Amino acid sequence: MGRVYNFSAGPSILPLEVLQQAKDELLNYKSSGMSVLELSHRSRLFMEIIEESEIMLRNLLQIPTNYHVLFLQGGATLQFSMVPLNLAVQSRKIDFIDTGIWSKKAIAEAEKFAKIHVVASSTTEIPKIENWHSDADYLHITTNNTIEGTRFPAIPKTNIPIVADMSSHILSEKIDVSQFGVIYAGAQKNIGPAGLTVVIIREDLLHRTPENCPTYLHYNTHAKHRSLYNTPPTFSIYMAKLVFQWLIDQGGISEIEKKNKEKAAILYHFLDESNFFFNPVEKEDRSLMNIPFSTVSDERNEQFISECLEKGLTNLKGHRTVGGMRASLYNAMHIEGVYELVNCMKEFEKKYV
Amino acid sequence: MGRVYNFSAGPSILPLEVLQQAKDELLNYKSSGMSVLELSHRSRLFMEIIEESEIMLRNLLQIPTNYHVLFLQGGATLQFSMVPLNLAVQSRKIDFIDTGIWSKKAIAEAEKFAKIHVVASSTTEIPKIENWHSDADYLHITTNNTIEGTRFPAIPKTNIPIVADMSSHILSEKIDVSQFGVIYAGAQKNIGPAGLTVVIIREDLLHRTPENCPTYLHYNTHAKHRSLYNTPPTFSIYMAKLVFQWLIDQGGISEIEKKNKEKAAILYHFLDESNFFFNPVEKEDRSLMNIPFSTVSDERNEQFISECLEKGLTNLKGHRTVGGMRASLYNAMHIEGVYELVNCMKEFEKKYV
Repeated sequence: MGRVYNFSAGPSILPLEVLQQAKDELLNYKSSGMSVLELSHRSRLFMEIIEESEIMLRNLLQIPTNYHVLFLQGGATLQFSMVPLNLAVQSRKIDFIDTGIWSKKAIAEAEKFAKIHVVASSTTEIPKIENWHSDADYLHITTNNTIEGTRFPAIPKTNIPIVADMSSHILSEKIDVSQFGVIYAGAQKNIGPAGLTVVIIREDLLHRTPENCPTYLHYNTHAKHRSLYNTPPTFSIYMAKLVFQWLIDQGGISEIEKKNKEKAAILYHFLDESNFFFNPVEKEDRSLMNIPFSTVSDERNEQFISECLEKGLTNLKGHRTVGGMRASLYNAMHIEGVYELVNCMKEFEKKYV
Repeated sequence: MGRVYNFSAGPSILPLEVLQQAKDELLNYKSSGMSVLELSHRSRLFMEIIEESEIMLRNLLQIPTNYHVLFLQGGATLQFSMVPLNLAVQSRKIDFIDTGIWSKKAIAEAEKFAKIHVVASSTTEIPKIENWHSDADYLHITTNNTIEGTRFPAIPKTNIPIVADMSSHILSEKIDVSQFGVIYAGAQKNIGPAGLTVVIIREDLLHRTPENCPTYLHYNTHAKHRSLYNTPPTFSIYMAKLVFQWLIDQGGISEIEKKNKEKAAILYHFLDESNFFFNPVEKEDRSLMNIPFSTVSDERNEQFISECLEKGLTNLKGHRTVGGMRASLYNAMHIEGVYELVNCMKEFEKKYV
């Protein structure tokens, strides 16, 4: 089969130009006589890769100088433990806005280490929390909800640090990093391949951690050693660098945000006009990255997914917990893929309405 | 530069055939229209990869059915915490045989969670512990010492489970898995690229872990979900599968062990005959994988390393804590590389003796 439109929620589509470059230089990286996969993490060539990755990410997100960028492992799942182990150590209380399955997983994990207060909870809209005053150690939010298809249209104002799981929409639109204490994201959506986790943490939050925290789980271990305390996931960091370069070549975050808004608008517009397909999310809280939708029956959904597959549109099946369909429109998804999807939906609808 | 002989201790040389296959199928994995880097970890194609990887590893190491194979992240560094958090929970005592820098790192981490007893300690030989009887929760050993160049010629007999860090020599020679409670290894030597950690754990040891252990750090999380509780490092697991297949094609562990013994013998023989280069390790405890050596002066060492580099023999510099040189002869290092190295040593010696 020729290249498909891959709507997977993650691991997911990567820019073809990035894959092509990785392929071209896979056997001999910069005339070193070695593959990038074989480079020692202490070698000059790899040091350049990790340093350039950080510089590019800092430029793309305009990360202030009092924030550290960490390249870690273990995904959001390990962050669900790392964040409370490092930060929930003063009042030992954490506030959560619960916006779905990934919030609930973060809550379940944090409950092992601290007292949890769920400020508000909803899966079809983002609860509006205007001015939140609290003595908790931090407020945790999931800024984009991969399964529910919601996204925070604005970040709450509060007196405590905000910790944000941005796994499924980091780098898709402008953010103001200074609104957050910690941002974390699994790489396998808009950053690169699975196996890398990016953490952006404000300097002053590195120093709360108790001594008995496992060394790998201590943010300051990685801040002090510039993510080279132990062997990092070298190839994933190299791939992230290529993706960051691709994003810069696309015109940076403001340009990719325009494209992402255009792509999402095409699909939402169709969904809102349709009498056959629908999306359940409040308009102002809709995700630009993950768009769940459904017909009226499971049978029709399955039929639709299968017809799409025949046309080279893959991974449209919704998350097993909610069913239906889901189209993930990450940065690397070309607008043509969205048009193709809408065409399929139109044709399918014609047959049944 | 054409392909070099890469003597790096890790991340390190990979078989050229494996790199070539990864390159050939990087843009379109098995006619899926996607890169292997873009495959969802829940897709049929990736499930096949992880299942086949496990089957191949089980066959290569003859892993008994009462052991689980886990594909994790975080390297040996995270294992230094995971092992005590899961296992040092009954007597809360751990016995260690300290054979060098990596043992000491494991000890320093374990001290956060349990009382440590160092049974014996040496860096130029392996302490002989014949029959060790103890009430500790386990005995930890580092079976191959990457920096010191030693290796356990036999595994101690004891009444408690043995936990072994095999990062730098797993898959290089036959082992009897049933002698161990837990085996762990960072992938970036003989398994594949950095970012993957393999754990082999006996079934009964999965059930000691206290409830408040972070979910990602709980071995049983991964055992129950066949390493798919969260997104695993998919590309590294794919590469490991290619390496396992390559090993099978080489004739399996018994054949690679023969080759490794032959390669190491060539270098040790030269070192023992030389009046200029020397290796400090007791003969019966010498590593087959990591061979440290030195001349009489730092100046000569640097000169030698630089002359080797000109001839395409790279990464021969010793670990920064011990200086001198180190040649890592992992499975993927061809015997020709060892001959080339010995030739360089002979020529260099001629000039100065």
